[in-house]
Amino acid sequence: MIPRYSRPEMTAIWEPATKFRIWYEIEAHAGDAMADLGVIPRENADAVWKAKDVEFDVARIDEIEAVTKHDVIAFLTHLSEHVGADQARFVHQGMTSSDVLDTTFNVQLTRAADILIADMERVLSALKARAIEHRDTVRIGRSHGIHAEPTTMGLTFARFYAEMDRGLARLRNAREEIATGALSGAVGTFANIDPRVEEHVCAKMGLSPEPISTQVIPRDRHAMFFATLGVIASSMENIATEIRHMQRTEVLEAEEFFSKGQKGSSAMPHKRNPVLTENLTGLARLVRMSVVPAMENVTLWHERDISHSSVERAIGPDTTVTLDFALNRLAGVIEKLVIYPQHMLDNMNKFRGLVMSQRVLLALTQAGVSREDAYRLVQRNAMKVWEQGADFKTELLADAEVTAALSPEQIEEKFDLGYHTKHVETIFARVFG
Amino acid sequence: MIPRYSRPEMTAIWEPATKFRIWYEIEAHAGDAMADLGVIPRENADAVWKAKDVEFDVARIDEIEAVTKHDVIAFLTHLSEHVGADQARFVHQGMTSSDVLDTTFNVQLTRAADILIADMERVLSALKARAIEHRDTVRIGRSHGIHAEPTTMGLTFARFYAEMDRGLARLRNAREEIATGALSGAVGTFANIDPRVEEHVCAKMGLSPEPISTQVIPRDRHAMFFATLGVIASSMENIATEIRHMQRTEVLEAEEFFSKGQKGSSAMPHKRNPVLTENLTGLARLVRMSVVPAMENVTLWHERDISHSSVERAIGPDTTVTLDFALNRLAGVIEKLVIYPQHMLDNMNKFRGLVMSQRVLLALTQAGVSREDAYRLVQRNAMKVWEQGADFKTELLADAEVTAALSPEQIEEKFDLGYHTKHVETIFARVFG
Amino acid sequence: MIPRYSRPEMTAIWEPATKFRIWYEIEAHAGDAMADLGVIPRENADAVWKAKDVEFDVARIDEIEAVTKHDVIAFLTHLSEHVGADQARFVHQGMTSSDVLDTTFNVQLTRAADILIADMERVLSALKARAIEHRDTVRIGRSHGIHAEPTTMGLTFARFYAEMDRGLARLRNAREEIATGALSGAVGTFANIDPRVEEHVCAKMGLSPEPISTQVIPRDRHAMFFATLGVIASSMENIATEIRHMQRTEVLEAEEFFSKGQKGSSAMPHKRNPVLTENLTGLARLVRMSVVPAMENVTLWHERDISHSSVERAIGPDTTVTLDFALNRLAGVIEKLVIYPQHMLDNMNKFRGLVMSQRVLLALTQAGVSREDAYRLVQRNAMKVWEQGADFKTELLADAEVTAALSPEQIEEKFDLGYHTKHVETIFARVFG
Amino acid sequence: MIPRYSRPEMTAIWEPATKFRIWYEIEAHAGDAMADLGVIPRENADAVWKAKDVEFDVARIDEIEAVTKHDVIAFLTHLSEHVGADQARFVHQGMTSSDVLDTTFNVQLTRAADILIADMERVLSALKARAIEHRDTVRIGRSHGIHAEPTTMGLTFARFYAEMDRGLARLRNAREEIATGALSGAVGTFANIDPRVEEHVCAKMGLSPEPISTQVIPRDRHAMFFATLGVIASSMENIATEIRHMQRTEVLEAEEFFSKGQKGSSAMPHKRNPVLTENLTGLARLVRMSVVPAMENVTLWHERDISHSSVERAIGPDTTVTLDFALNRLAGVIEKLVIYPQHMLDNMNKFRGLVMSQRVLLALTQAGVSREDAYRLVQRNAMKVWEQGADFKTELLADAEVTAALSPEQIEEKFDLGYHTKHVETIFARVFG
Repeated sequence: MIPRYSRPEMTAIWEPATKFRIWYEIEAHAGDAMADLGVIPRENADAVWKAKDVEFDVARIDEIEAVTKHDVIAFLTHLSEHVGADQARFVHQGMTSSDVLDTTFNVQLTRAADILIADMERVLSALKARAIEHRDTVRIGRSHGIHAEPTTMGLTFARFYAEMDRGLARLRNAREEIATGALSGAVGTFANIDPRVEEHVCAKMGLSPEPISTQVIPRDRHAMFFATLGVIASSMENIATEIRHMQRTEVLEAEEFFSKGQKGSSAMPHKRNPVLTENLTGLARLVRMSVVPAMENVTLWHERDISHSSVERAIGPDTTVTLDFALNRLAGVIEKLVIYPQHMLDNMNKFRGLVMSQRVLLALTQAGVSREDAYRLVQRNAMKVWEQGADFKTELLADAEVTAALSPEQIEEKFDLGYHTKHVETIFARVFG
Repeated sequence: MIPRYSRPEMTAIWEPATKFRIWYEIEAHAGDAMADLGVIPRENADAVWKAKDVEFDVARIDEIEAVTKHDVIAFLTHLSEHVGADQARFVHQGMTSSDVLDTTFNVQLTRAADILIADMERVLSALKARAIEHRDTVRIGRSHGIHAEPTTMGLTFARFYAEMDRGLARLRNAREEIATGALSGAVGTFANIDPRVEEHVCAKMGLSPEPISTQVIPRDRHAMFFATLGVIASSMENIATEIRHMQRTEVLEAEEFFSKGQKGSSAMPHKRNPVLTENLTGLARLVRMSVVPAMENVTLWHERDISHSSVERAIGPDTTVTLDFALNRLAGVIEKLVIYPQHMLDNMNKFRGLVMSQRVLLALTQAGVSREDAYRLVQRNAMKVWEQGADFKTELLADAEVTAALSPEQIEEKFDLGYHTKHVETIFARVFG
Repeated sequence: MIPRYSRPEMTAIWEPATKFRIWYEIEAHAGDAMADLGVIPRENADAVWKAKDVEFDVARIDEIEAVTKHDVIAFLTHLSEHVGADQARFVHQGMTSSDVLDTTFNVQLTRAADILIADMERVLSALKARAIEHRDTVRIGRSHGIHAEPTTMGLTFARFYAEMDRGLARLRNAREEIATGALSGAVGTFANIDPRVEEHVCAKMGLSPEPISTQVIPRDRHAMFFATLGVIASSMENIATEIRHMQRTEVLEAEEFFSKGQKGSSAMPHKRNPVLTENLTGLARLVRMSVVPAMENVTLWHERDISHSSVERAIGPDTTVTLDFALNRLAGVIEKLVIYPQHMLDNMNKFRGLVMSQRVLLALTQAGVSREDAYRLVQRNAMKVWEQGADFKTELLADAEVTAALSPEQIEEKFDLGYHTKHVETIFARVFG
Repeated sequence: MIPRYSRPEMTAIWEPATKFRIWYEIEAHAGDAMADLGVIPRENADAVWKAKDVEFDVARIDEIEAVTKHDVIAFLTHLSEHVGADQARFVHQGMTSSDVLDTTFNVQLTRAADILIADMERVLSALKARAIEHRDTVRIGRSHGIHAEPTTMGLTFARFYAEMDRGLARLRNAREEIATGALSGAVGTFANIDPRVEEHVCAKMGLSPEPISTQVIPRDRHAMFFATLGVIASSMENIATEIRHMQRTEVLEAEEFFSKGQKGSSAMPHKRNPVLTENLTGLARLVRMSVVPAMENVTLWHERDISHSSVERAIGPDTTVTLDFALNRLAGVIEKLVIYPQHMLDNMNKFRGLVMSQRVLLALTQAGVSREDAYRLVQRNAMKVWEQGADFKTELLADAEVTAALSPEQIEEKFDLGYHTKHVETIFARVFG
C-alpha cells in the first residue's frame, strides 16, 4: 500500500482499529447468540456490550501481544480490561481464532467491495456523460493503429461504459461470493459451538453463513474475488491506453486536464504528459499481480495451513486500496478529459480522403466495373494522393473512367460521414437502454 | 494441447473442420438475414445452403490460403467452389473477417463451456456419492498437517462438493458472458451491415448480440472466462493435494484406484503412487497460466490490434482441452478412490488420545479447576503419553487430582467421537439441501 | 505449439523420434561406461551400438506402450527388437526411468537454447546493421508519447541492440545452467549405478553431471531457464511496441516491409498494418506465461513427485518453439523495416520549433535574464506557435526583448540539431565497442 | 511491505531519508565532475559538500513538494536551504529528474542485493552445517510421497545447499546487472550533460555507467532482477515444503524449534505447527508475484513513459524486504530444526522391510530365477508383510524357494543400509568441494 496511491476511506478498512472493532462485534454478537441458546449467562453476554463505544487502544493490544505472542488472545485480554475479567470470562467460548479472523477478513473485503462498487459507478457515470456529449463527434476508427473507417468519440466512451458495466456486474458477484462468515471451530465441525451462533453473527455482520468450512473459509472465494479485480484492472488499462494514444503529440485528439497553474504548461504548450493514464497502466499491473497468488492460496493442506495468511495480509489491503485509488483517478481523468474534435477531423483527413478508398472500390464494382478495373482505377487515384499530396475526391471527380461509372453525386456520397454514423443511436440504445 | 491430456469431444471443437463449419453457418445465416432485409437476392442466400451437408476440404482451403494469404478469403473461395461463384457472390457482403472469426471463437468457447459444465457435474456427482458414503467415517482433522480434532471423510468430500458447486456457478456465469457474437463491420459502426443481421446470426448460433463492439468483441469477456477456469483449476488442485496427502505412505487413508493387473502392484504393495492427482496438480498450473495473458489481452489499441490473436490460438484450445481432461480424470479418481477407514482410526490414535487434551483442559476449568492447575494436570499426563507411550485416557483415570474434578464418566465422555460428529447432518443439509 | 508459429529446426527437437534417439544414446553410452567398469560384459555394451543408424519406429513403440503402460519400457522393448533380447538384457541396468527422461529433457532444452542463441545473434546482427545505417538519422525523442528532444534512429536501434545483447548473455547463462544430466537412481544415491556412468554419459551428451540429484534434476534450473526466456520475450515486446508506434498513421516513421504483390497495398496505400509486430506482442505473452508455472514446479515433494511433468510437456516445446519463431520474425522485421527519415523530420517540426523552447529558456537565463522574465518571453512566443501556427525561431528573432539578450546567431544555435547528436559516436562506441 | 515480515536493515534502504541521501550524493558528485570539466565553478561544486553531514528534513521536503508538485525540485529547494541559494544554483544543471531517480533506484536495489547475498550466505552456512551433521542419518527416500529407497538426511540438506548456492550465483549476476547508473538527459543523448559526469558519478556510487539509456535505464535489467528473486523464492518454498512434510503428525521426522516457554507446547505436545515454513510458503508467493509485472514493465513507449514507476514503488521495497525477511526466517528454521533420526528409522520400517523388495527381486533374477518366478516369490512374501504384518526378511529366510536361490547372507545383504549410502561421500565432495 503506497500512500500516494491511497484514499482514506479504503485504507481505514485495513487499519488495526477497524479490525479490532470487527473482532469486538463478532465476539459480542456471538455472546448474544450463546446466551439465547442458554450456553452462557445472559448477563455476561450483555456485559460485553459495555465496550460498545470504546475505541480500542491499538498500542496497548500490541503491548499485550508482545507477551502472549497471539493476536486474538491479546485483544481478548484487552477487552477484559474494559469489560472486567470476570464478566468477560465467556467471551470467545468454543470459538477458534480463525472464526474471528476469517470472518473479519471477509467483512473487510465486503466493505472494500462496497467502496469499489461506488467507484465503478462514478466511472460509469463519467463515461456515460462523455459518451452522450460526444455521441456525434466524428473520429477515425483505427485498426492496428492505422486509419480504417470513421466512428465517433461517443462510441468509444460507450464501449468503455459497456465494458465497465460488465465489470460492475462481476464485482457485485464477487462481493456476494466473499460475503460469508464462519464460526465453526477448529476443524469446521461445530464441535464446540452451535451452528446457530454462526447464523446469528453472520446476520448481524451482513454476511451469509459459510455452508461448510474447515478451520477456515474456503479460499476459492478469495481467488474469485481477486481474479475479478484483476479483470476490472485490465479494463481500466484498456481505457487508459486509449487516452495515452489520443494524447501523443502526433495524434492530440484529447488531453488529460492540465490546470492553468501547472508549471511549464504555456512555455512548453506541447509538453503535457498523460502521466495519470500512464500511472493507471502501472496500477493495473499491481492489481493484477494478486491474481495468481490468490489462486495459489486455494490449496490448503487438510483442514488448513497458514500459507495463505501472509499473502492475504499483503494483497488484501494493497489490491483493494490500489484499485480504489485507480478507479477514482480514472473517473477524474474521464470527467475532465479535454477533447479536440477539430484535431480528430484533421487526423481523419491526413490522407485527404484515402480512408474512403474501400467504399469507392465497392461502388465501382457495384456499378458494373470489373474487380480488376475497379482496383486499377482506385489505385491510380490513390497513388496521386499518397505520393503527390492530392485530394482523393478531387482526383476521382477528374478521372473520366471513374465518372463514366459513378456520377459526381455518387462519388460525393462515398465521402459522406453520415454513412458511418447512421447506427450510432441504435448502439447507444443497446448500451444505455 | 498435449494428446495424452486430451479428450476427443473437446479437441473436436478446435479442429479446422469445426471452425470452417461454424464460419459456414455464420455466412449462411447472415445471407438469410440480408435477403430478408432485401439487401441481397433471396435466391443467392438460399444457394449457400446447398453446401449444408458438405464436409469442407481443409487441405484444399489451406492450399488456397497459401496463395491468398488470408484464411477467410480462402474459405470463401472454397465455398464458392461448392455453391458456384456466381451464386456465392453476395456471401460475406458488408462483413469483415473479424465478424466471422470473433463470433466463431465465442461459439467454440461456449461449446467448450458446455462440455466443462458437464464435466463439473460429473465431478459433483462423484463427490456427492462419496460424501454420503463416508458421511460418518471418522477421521482426524488436521491443521498445519498436525492432528487437531476429529472430523469425517464425508465432510471432506462435502466441502469439495460445495467448492466445486461454486465453481460450476461461476462457470455458468462465464459461459453466459462469452456467449456473444458480433457482425458490426470494420470499426463496429455497422456502416456496411445492418444490426439486424447480427441479431439473426446470433440467435441462430445460440449467442447474444454484443451490445457494442469495435472490429472485435471486447476481450474483458475472455479474460473473465479464463480467470474463471483458473479458479476452477485451483479448486481441482486443492482436492488433488488432499488425496496426495492421504495416499502418502505414513498416512495411507486413501489410494487412487490401482487395477489388479498394474505391474508391480503386489510385489511392491507399498508402492502405489498417486500419479493421477500429482498430474492434476501440474494440469492446474497449465490451466492457470492462461489467466494473466488473457488479462493482458484486454488492452487493444483503438478499434483493435491483433496482439490478442496468437495468445488465443494457444490458450483457447489448450486451456479448455486441458481442463476438460483434468476434470474427467479428477472425477474418475474420486469415483474409484479406495478409502481405508481403519487407517483413519489408527492414525487418529497415533498418540493414544492426545488429540482430546484440549477438551479435557476445558472440562477441568469448567469443573472449577483454575486455568494454571488444569494446564498442569493435562500436561503431566500428556507427557507420559508423549514420552512413554502411555494411553491418555488411562492416565487421566488414574490421576487422583484429575478424578477429583471429573468423574470417570465425564472423562470417558471427552473421548466420545460423537461429540465431534453431532452436526454433520446439519452441515450436509446445508451443502446438499 | 501452433504450426503457424513454428520453425522446423526447433520443432524437430521435440519430436518423438528425436526423443527416442536421445534415449538410445544415453542407454548406449551408459552401457559403454558400465562395461568399462566391469559391471556388464563389453560384448553386450557393444551390441547396443548395432542400432546406431536405426530410425526408431515411433508407431511401434506407441503400440508396445499401449500394452506396457510405460514409455521407457516400451522403448527398451523396441530396442531389444533391433539388438536382440539376449544382447540387450543389460541395457538400462541400475537406472531408473527418470535418469533417461530428465537427462533427455535437458539435452532438448540445451539444443533449443543453441538455436535460440543463433536466433538472438541474427536479431543482434540486424539491429547493429540498422543502427549503423541510421546512426545520424535525426528523429524526435519522446517521453510519455510527447515530443521531448531530438535523438537519432540509430540510437533507438543501438539501445535495442544493447538490450538484446544482455538477453543473449542471460541466455548463455541459462543454457549453461540447464546443460546437466543425472543417472543417479531412484532417490539420487547411486545405490544401483556408479557415479562414473553418469560422468561418462554426460560428457558424451555435452552435459555436466548434476552434482546432486534426487530421482530428478532439481527444477530451479528449469525455472531460471524459462524466466530468462520470459525476460527476452519482454525485450522483444519492447522492440515490437516501438515499431507499432512508428507505423501508426499519424506517425509513420517506419513500416514493416510490405511486398509489392501484397493485396490492397496500392489501392489503400495508407492501410499497411504492423501485423508482425502486433503478433510479436502476443507471442511475448505466450513465452512469458511459462514463467510462473516453471517456478511453481520447483517445489517437489521429497525425492520427487510428478506434478512438474505435465507442465514441462507443454512449456518445454511450446515456449522454445514460440520464442524461436518470434525471434526470427523479429529479425526479419528489423532487417526489412522501411524507414522514413523525412517523416521523422516532419514530425519533429510539427510544432515548428517548439521542442527547442527549453534550450531557449535556459539560454535566456544564462544570458542574465531573470527566470521569470525568461519564462514570460518564451511563453509569449510559444503561444503564437501553438495557437496561430507561427514558427518559433522566426518569432524569437522578431522579439526585441529576446534579441536584446540573445544574438541571432545564438538563437540559431539553439535550433542546431548537432547539439543533440554530438555524443552519438561516444554512445555507439560504448555499445558496439 | 508488512511490518511483521520486515527487517530494519532492509527497510532502511527504502526510507525517504535514504533516498534523499542518495539523491544528494549523486548531485554532489555530479557537481564535482562538472567542475572538473570546467562546466560549473569549482567553488559551487565544493559548496554542495557543506551539506555532507546534514540529515535532510523529510517533512520539510514533503511540505515543499506539496507546493511544487515535483519531488526532485522539492529536494533541490531544500538542499539550497542548506547550501545557500546562490551557491546551489548549478546543482542539477543539465540533468533530468530521471537521471537522479533511476540511478538512485539502482543504488537501492544494489544495496538490497548485497543484503540478500548475505542472507543467502547465512542460509547456505546453516544448510552446510546440518548436512555435515546428518550426513549419515538414514532416512527413507520418497517418490510421490511413497517410500522408495533409503537416502540420508544429510543428502537432503546437501541438495538444498546446492540449489541455494545456484541461487546465490544467480543473485550475484542479478546484482551485477542492476548496478548501473545513468545521467544522460531527457532522451539519453547527453545533449546537456557530458558523458564523463555520468562516469564519475557511477564510479563514486559503486555503479557502472549504463552504456546506452533513454530518459531511463532499460527495464530488462529490473525484470531479470525480480525474476531471479522469484526463482530464489521458489527454492525457498521447496525447502519449506520438505520441512512441512517432515513435521506432519504421521511423519514427525523433524520439527521447527519450539521454545520451552511457548504456550501449549507440553499440554498438547503433539500440536506443534510448522507455522514458520508455512509462512515461508506464502512469502514465496509474495516474492514471485513481482516477476510478471516486472516483465510487463520492460516495454516503455519511445524514450520512456511512466507506467513502470508505480509498479516499482511497490515491488522495489516489498519484494526485497519480504525476501530478506524470509531468507532469515529460513536460516533460523534450518539452524534450529529439531531432527528425529529414530522416527526416520521407524518410518522406514513401517512396512517391515518391504522397501527392499526391488533389490530382492533383482537378486533373484541375477541368481538365475526367471523373471516370472522371481516376481511370484517376492510377491507372496510381500503380501504376508502387507496383509498380515509379517517381517519381510524373516519371511524370505523362511521361504525354501527363495533360500534355494539366495543364501541367508545374500538375503541379509539386501537389507544392508550401507548399500544405499556408499556414495554419500562422493556426492558431498561434489557439493561442498
